[in-house]
Amino acid sequence: MCMAIPSRIIALDGEMATVEAFGRTRTVSLMLMPEPVGIGDYLLIQAGNFASERVDHERALETLAILGEIVDHAEN
Amino acid sequence: MCMAIPSRIIALDGEMATVEAFGRTRTVSLMLMPEPVGIGDYLLIQAGNFASERVDHERALETLAILGEIVDHAEN
Repeated sequence: MCMAIPSRIIALDGEMATVEAFGRTRTVSLMLMPEPVGIGDYLLIQAGNFASERVDHERALETLAILGEIVDHAEN
Repeated sequence: MCMAIPSRIIALDGEMATVEAFGRTRTVSLMLMPEPVGIGDYLLIQAGNFASERVDHERALETLAILGEIVDHAEN
């Protein structure tokens, strides 16, 4: 299950944005945004504080290996 | 775009779990889990620190109104 909360940009600092929803603020990366954004725009922010799905060990380890390669590639 | 990181449960405290992925730990709610989980299980945790999509103001406000009603209903 994928959940996202529309969150309003209240501040920008380079590739990072401070967003607000329901009175709570969060700092998010704009690295994956395909277009420029401005203060007042709404971004969809995934609800990262809730687990809603379990994944089996084998699939988890495969996915982590792929994500690890992507991270390594991005850093080098 | 929906992204999730398989994250291993390293501690449980009632409806909250501490999970680990790539050396970072996060505390997540299990409120939405449809099944019991245990230490060592992998959960899919949404990558809540990245914005990847903008949403227009009207749709954002509609969604926030619906989410606000759900929150009110859950609290009362």
